[in-house]
Amino acid sequence: MTTTARALHAPAAKAPLEPTTIERRALGEQDVAIDIKFCGICHSDIHQVEADWGRGLFPMVPGHEIAGVVSAVGDGVTRFAPGDRVGVGCFVDSCGACEQCEAGEENFCVKGVVATYNGEGYDGERTYGGYSDHVVVTERFVVSIPDALELDVAAPLLCAGITMYNPLKRWGAGPGKAVAIVGMGGLGHVGVQIAAAMGADVTVLSQTLSKEEDGRRFGATDYHATSDKATFKALRNRFDVIVNTVSANLPLDAYLGLLKPGGALVSVGLPVEPDRVHAGSLIGRNRIYAGSNTGGMPATQEMLDFCAEHGVAPAIEVIAGAEVNDAYPRVTGSDVRYRFVIDVGTLAAG
Amino acid sequence: MTTTARALHAPAAKAPLEPTTIERRALGEQDVAIDIKFCGICHSDIHQVEADWGRGLFPMVPGHEIAGVVSAVGDGVTRFAPGDRVGVGCFVDSCGACEQCEAGEENFCVKGVVATYNGEGYDGERTYGGYSDHVVVTERFVVSIPDALELDVAAPLLCAGITMYNPLKRWGAGPGKAVAIVGMGGLGHVGVQIAAAMGADVTVLSQTLSKEEDGRRFGATDYHATSDKATFKALRNRFDVIVNTVSANLPLDAYLGLLKPGGALVSVGLPVEPDRVHAGSLIGRNRIYAGSNTGGMPATQEMLDFCAEHGVAPAIEVIAGAEVNDAYPRVTGSDVRYRFVIDVGTLAAG
Repeated sequence: MTTTARALHAPAAKAPLEPTTIERRALGEQDVAIDIKFCGICHSDIHQVEADWGRGLFPMVPGHEIAGVVSAVGDGVTRFAPGDRVGVGCFVDSCGACEQCEAGEENFCVKGVVATYNGEGYDGERTYGGYSDHVVVTERFVVSIPDALELDVAAPLLCAGITMYNPLKRWGAGPGKAVAIVGMGGLGHVGVQIAAAMGADVTVLSQTLSKEEDGRRFGATDYHATSDKATFKALRNRFDVIVNTVSANLPLDAYLGLLKPGGALVSVGLPVEPDRVHAGSLIGRNRIYAGSNTGGMPATQEMLDFCAEHGVAPAIEVIAGAEVNDAYPRVTGSDVRYRFVIDVGTLAAG
Repeated sequence: MTTTARALHAPAAKAPLEPTTIERRALGEQDVAIDIKFCGICHSDIHQVEADWGRGLFPMVPGHEIAGVVSAVGDGVTRFAPGDRVGVGCFVDSCGACEQCEAGEENFCVKGVVATYNGEGYDGERTYGGYSDHVVVTERFVVSIPDALELDVAAPLLCAGITMYNPLKRWGAGPGKAVAIVGMGGLGHVGVQIAAAMGADVTVLSQTLSKEEDGRRFGATDYHATSDKATFKALRNRFDVIVNTVSANLPLDAYLGLLKPGGALVSVGLPVEPDRVHAGSLIGRNRIYAGSNTGGMPATQEMLDFCAEHGVAPAIEVIAGAEVNDAYPRVTGSDVRYRFVIDVGTLAAG
């Protein structure tokens, strides 16, 4: 039997969000039903509501930073029971059989991963996200939230956390490594904490020094303004890894120049226009320019466990459902320290 | 006591090469004196004679693919004796003390590596390359040429060989891996052989199919024309590693699309203009765009030993000193299969 959920949706591209109701599927054998408690607002929610990235399926219920409590499980579910604290991130299905799925890299599923919202399931049904009071998700795509993490604080980790954890791990952040995080926003402030918890020496590269105090509190030992050209001279050949969270086009050759030989600049923010890169910026010192895009389910669970163990906690501002339309421009304008989280219990009836 | 060497030099930028004589330094305690037998013509020789890459020190004696026989050694030399078959590659000195030198990555020496030609030693003396009949080089920068390699065939390995070996090794070419080599020229035809010898499944991506027979003989199991747009559709998500030897600007987003998730496109050719790259081409599948630039001394020796063991042999056309000016436009016009090597015994008196 399907169930009716309260939700917030954008009825059309660029339209304000408004209360609505949606139907959730009947609990299947492998399904976990989750009472959503909190859902983070990711910058990508705004891009998708604005239809910036092409396809936008409307009405759209955004939200892929979901934290809640299990209300029921299907007969085939083994890892969860009612009352468990759980999370759901950027996707809710994949083929489960391809080499990527078998490697736990469901996000690269050859058949194509099913996005948590603004997507279509393999059954052709539209997916609706976490700006709603409950959801039904296949067990594989549900992760356990450790007791040490509050649900509201955990929510942003489901996207921002894994987006930063994966490239830092892949490119070797750890003791003796110099890591820079470009941008001190929703992603960056989590990245600083994770890199520091991994044991790396962390520098923040931000447009200005306005958030320096926060950056040092999150674990950075150094903080530089990218608006100051002297920064690029002073830090030349300094870093093993730079994770770039900025989704505007940056002067990449200048950033690549900050890497040691063999070092990696990893972008996780997606500018619309192409970047310009001189091959010489890479070839001269065997440097690397890479991209990174969320992570698979095993890595997502590992990240949550790591954050719980090391006290990594997004700085959040909890808001009511009625405040989301006011929050969006503050995200776009970098006027939030550092992540909005919707208290889903406040959602009005549709 | 300094010695006088016959040589070919370019008296000024873009000038034809002409016979000359140069002085080589007196044999020092750590020095190896080498009778040069063969010197490969690298495309970069032409770029430097043309002063395409900025600094050009004239008169210039090019040549950094040097193969010869030891004629004398300084008292402190332990690894070589007169009569030994040896090679010299792209550089002839480094500080020896920095972290890069200590790691055997002399090419990334923090003080700055000394190029084999068109460079200046730490003593301020100009360096002159292998288009000459003998040279004196510090022991550290001399490698042993295994008996299984003819000296003329070995010469191009000192630059082309290590330039291809290093990225293939670094990025994991081997059994079960799909590797593409872009460009079937002096670098590419060596890369195909090395990748195949490493056990990878090798595809050539060349502008046309004109060299397909050669490519398959060198070890490629697949060969595609990049002038055919269908190639980019057919090979989508196919490769673990692509090594790009072309020094023109390529449509990198299209090439990145040929990589599996997490795969690496590595450029070793240096276009003058910047490339355009969409961050989305990298982020969407955790793809990597990297550069690679020759290799350190331990890797160079390892590469020579590997080529000797596996029968990797550049296809060469041996020419006399008087033919070099005719050879240069044939290199630029891709009209050589696949590498010119100068028989240094033919050098005329200056």
